[in-house]
Amino acid sequence: MVKIVGIGGSLRPNSSSYQALDVAIRRVQALGAETQVLDLRQMQLPFCNGEKEYPDYPDVIRLREAVQEADGLILATPEYHGSVSGVLKNALDLMSFDQLSGKVTGLISVLGGQSNSNALNDLRVIMRWVHGWVIPEQVAIGQSWKAFDKDGKLLDDQLSQRFDQFAESLVENTRKLRGVS
Amino acid sequence: MVKIVGIGGSLRPNSSSYQALDVAIRRVQALGAETQVLDLRQMQLPFCNGEKEYPDYPDVIRLREAVQEADGLILATPEYHGSVSGVLKNALDLMSFDQLSGKVTGLISVLGGQSNSNALNDLRVIMRWVHGWVIPEQVAIGQSWKAFDKDGKLLDDQLSQRFDQFAESLVENTRKLRGVS
Amino acid sequence: MVKIVGIGGSLRPNSSSYQALDVAIRRVQALGAETQVLDLRQMQLPFCNGEKEYPDYPDVIRLREAVQEADGLILATPEYHGSVSGVLKNALDLMSFDQLSGKVTGLISVLGGQSNSNALNDLRVIMRWVHGWVIPEQVAIGQSWKAFDKDGKLLDDQLSQRFDQFAESLVENTRKLRGVS
Amino acid sequence: MVKIVGIGGSLRPNSSSYQALDVAIRRVQALGAETQVLDLRQMQLPFCNGEKEYPDYPDVIRLREAVQEADGLILATPEYHGSVSGVLKNALDLMSFDQLSGKVTGLISVLGGQSNSNALNDLRVIMRWVHGWVIPEQVAIGQSWKAFDKDGKLLDDQLSQRFDQFAESLVENTRKLRGVS
Repeated sequence: MVKIVGIGGSLRPNSSSYQALDVAIRRVQALGAETQVLDLRQMQLPFCNGEKEYPDYPDVIRLREAVQEADGLILATPEYHGSVSGVLKNALDLMSFDQLSGKVTGLISVLGGQSNSNALNDLRVIMRWVHGWVIPEQVAIGQSWKAFDKDGKLLDDQLSQRFDQFAESLVENTRKLRGVS
Repeated sequence: MVKIVGIGGSLRPNSSSYQALDVAIRRVQALGAETQVLDLRQMQLPFCNGEKEYPDYPDVIRLREAVQEADGLILATPEYHGSVSGVLKNALDLMSFDQLSGKVTGLISVLGGQSNSNALNDLRVIMRWVHGWVIPEQVAIGQSWKAFDKDGKLLDDQLSQRFDQFAESLVENTRKLRGVS
Repeated sequence: MVKIVGIGGSLRPNSSSYQALDVAIRRVQALGAETQVLDLRQMQLPFCNGEKEYPDYPDVIRLREAVQEADGLILATPEYHGSVSGVLKNALDLMSFDQLSGKVTGLISVLGGQSNSNALNDLRVIMRWVHGWVIPEQVAIGQSWKAFDKDGKLLDDQLSQRFDQFAESLVENTRKLRGVS
Repeated sequence: MVKIVGIGGSLRPNSSSYQALDVAIRRVQALGAETQVLDLRQMQLPFCNGEKEYPDYPDVIRLREAVQEADGLILATPEYHGSVSGVLKNALDLMSFDQLSGKVTGLISVLGGQSNSNALNDLRVIMRWVHGWVIPEQVAIGQSWKAFDKDGKLLDDQLSQRFDQFAESLVENTRKLRGVS
């Protein structure tokens, strides 16, 4: 059964990135995927210092094991300064080809201003660098403060349809590329 | 007098990024610039959580004040996974337009494999996003393990000349753009 | 006196890129710049074949001479397939460091859908490659079919202010960087 | 049977891009793919003017039909000014989602100087824009003047192995993603 792991790049308590990630995760679940969210707000990760081992931080192993066992990934980042958040990039830096290579990835970005694809473009090249796949369908949510209602539901129908296409493409193509059901 | 602040994006004790930064800093000093290096290995910075204030981390204020008072910046990053390190991106995320806008920036990247400009391209767009200037001259050091001798001197003459051009452009054009001497 | 040359990347008779370029050109004129527009729709340029000379195409020389004599450039491109138009990239390919190096450049993109900075990002890296400067201020016009009135005037005040900032930055900083008045 | 179409972005008579494309095409043939090379040097294509039809240029239809019938693409471009050639971008501009969406693409770049992935990164984002897939394996050939012998064979074994991995990934994953044999 296809396994999808989601990671959000924000540490805000009330993060729109995690709201968007939750929407996406629920939709890939509905399509039969087994899912896990790694909530960086509840994990203790160090800054990457280029070392392989971080004995004081068992969450590094938890991060690596969960990603290694996954077939696919969802990366949801706030767009900070026109790129991926340092928080998410650092989490990726803590991993290597061992965990990331060959994974099929869907990308989501969230920003307060006008929608943009800068963070998504950077993440696409980053995931390629570690020999991952990135699906063509991607979601950039501009003016994110008005995207969700109080229960975390999407308010815009077109955006909701984009999430459907995103989830379908991720699940279907991860199955094809990874040969899992 | 033109003030240049250098920041390195590595936390390795024996970091090539800081070696490269030191070379660049010495050369801009020789051209009459006042310089300061913010060594992230000796600062306690939190992960950016989107908040403005980090009362438990006085180094955030130190970082912001030093950058705010600068005319120019040198950003030296290891290239991790084909982009800027999460460590450096996070340091930039902790700042805003207040500190970064209008700064004249020179970019350096260091990587173990074949030289590449991915991290430099991403940083160029990031610094533009915060309305900074980035000089055309940039330095990407491939196979960095053989770039420096034991005293941190560059072993390759062509690379050394690139640092000269980099330093000259940074100092001269920061003076022009900022109207300082 | 500061000289600014504008080039548009569209061949449409009724091109929004040229409308945007005209707005920008008029504003840099009002700031005292000498201007020239190279209208690719009225020039006969060949596809770049990697050769230096194109004896059958005198407009190649016209293009090169005008750019070589300029202090600054405005490049206005339609965003096709998430990047600069092939038409504009080809015009740049016909030039070299001799013409482009050191030029101070302002970038504009125009697209039918939602605004995006992909074409601007690519142009920024391209102009850096030839050792040009690119100002931080840039203009991306989304849904361009409703941006201008019948006389080519901008309908949106905020966008008009962006053009003002763009023109001021281009003229002022070209003067500073090139030492012209 | 999986169909792969190759397009080169150079108009040089003795183009390294086409030499690289030929190497790749032969290897995907050996893996059972049906192939076709669209040699832009022997086609009459206009500059894209934003129109759908180009009645004076039957090669536009030939280009579109060949790409539309393909399952996968190989795009080989010279890196001009740190990006894709205007010639190749223009050929892509002449096509639309109808031809390009869903195609599985492998990317190759060729340059005279030090190897770089700028053109490949731009092409990756361009192909994503039209909802194509791009395989993680890519080939950037630096110092291309010494890459091939007189018969167009690769002189470097490591580079030759990269082409093997490229061809295997393209054929295998096009089969998976497109459901063809």
